[in-house]
Amino acid sequence: MITKKELKEINSLRNKKGRKALQAFVVEGKKSIQEFLAAGFHLKGLYTTEEPSINGSILVGENEMQRMSFLKNASPYLGVFALPREIPLPKQGWILVLDQVADPGNLGTILRICDWFGIKHVVSSTTTVDCFNPKVVQASMGSLSRTHCHYLNLEHFLAENNRPIYGTYLEGESIYTIDFPKDAILIMGSEANGISENISRLVQHKITLPKKNLTGGPESLNVAIATALVLGEISR
Amino acid sequence: MITKKELKEINSLRNKKGRKALQAFVVEGKKSIQEFLAAGFHLKGLYTTEEPSINGSILVGENEMQRMSFLKNASPYLGVFALPREIPLPKQGWILVLDQVADPGNLGTILRICDWFGIKHVVSSTTTVDCFNPKVVQASMGSLSRTHCHYLNLEHFLAENNRPIYGTYLEGESIYTIDFPKDAILIMGSEANGISENISRLVQHKITLPKKNLTGGPESLNVAIATALVLGEISR
Repeated sequence: MITKKELKEINSLRNKKGRKALQAFVVEGKKSIQEFLAAGFHLKGLYTTEEPSINGSILVGENEMQRMSFLKNASPYLGVFALPREIPLPKQGWILVLDQVADPGNLGTILRICDWFGIKHVVSSTTTVDCFNPKVVQASMGSLSRTHCHYLNLEHFLAENNRPIYGTYLEGESIYTIDFPKDAILIMGSEANGISENISRLVQHKITLPKKNLTGGPESLNVAIATALVLGEISR
Repeated sequence: MITKKELKEINSLRNKKGRKALQAFVVEGKKSIQEFLAAGFHLKGLYTTEEPSINGSILVGENEMQRMSFLKNASPYLGVFALPREIPLPKQGWILVLDQVADPGNLGTILRICDWFGIKHVVSSTTTVDCFNPKVVQASMGSLSRTHCHYLNLEHFLAENNRPIYGTYLEGESIYTIDFPKDAILIMGSEANGISENISRLVQHKITLPKKNLTGGPESLNVAIATALVLGEISR
């Protein structure tokens, strides 16, 4: 059983305002919860419909779970975790910068891709979707637990950084001919408009994914697919 | 204005059974409709809420459009196209084979990726989601108009084909060390279970995407992301 207050609090975590107020976010699914625990996230509450349940979890009915869940079909486990403390950006390695990525599914997929390629830090414009949005958490499939998201004023951040800055555009130098350095910044733009003008002014290397369909094909790729292909080439 | 019969018929195209019965499918969005027209698809009906409308289109109210639409927020244009006639598979080039891909969003994204890399033919198991499913059409963003989907008995198809057969697994030879031929087959498996056992028996080259995160990271990548990375390497 959960109290009305608990249910109300959990439901409030659907929104950024609620997450900020309670300094918490929701993870659904046993495997993802285990990954956040393994990564050292602080668990504030664990609810399950399964018996025997994990140590410390609260047994709830399936109807209760569906009312707590942000999913169409609730998972048997829902965890409430404390928002992590911010950690400083490292001096070395690649950093992915996202300029106004709006779709939570895209951000979650991008975090999973970063985790695959060993990119540990993602810096996003404050206009990019919040990484603790339930749809982002879901789409990242646990990778959010291993990837640090920083929301910053991109212009300040880029102007003050010492790494070379690569930006992905529909036109630029082919990613297949560039000799990428060990430490740098890769910027990916929004689904609809690419990299915004004020950020473009700070880009030192305009790069592009050359289309291999010589007789036509789509104008562009989904931002998550493009991110995967560029990171694949950087880490090759 | 549309008639009740028209509305009922259009709504029936949401399902494979309805599409088969009427030999038609729905495309929403002006840009996608134009791409299907440019690719030579036969338009059976065009509905719009916009005035002045495209030649031959039927003007409908916004409420009517929402009742016809398969989207949460209807686009101003909805086209009904005839299902295309099947065309034979080419003797040359790469063919992508999908073994039980279940998610329509994944299939649509994969079609867009194929279109980007110039892969014109996708052969799917009959258990793979139908390519004229509205969510596939939507996610492919017009690329379905330029990519031919064949639904076949994969075991028969693979056993009778002359091309080398590559299958993507969690373990195998790294895609970064293989010298890919000009004509071949690439098999991608289902989101949950990978390539099924009866198909695996016909795979000649087990290949893998090596994970670049050496300290952990996700067990696997989304099937569309993995397809993009393998096709990127093949076409490099």
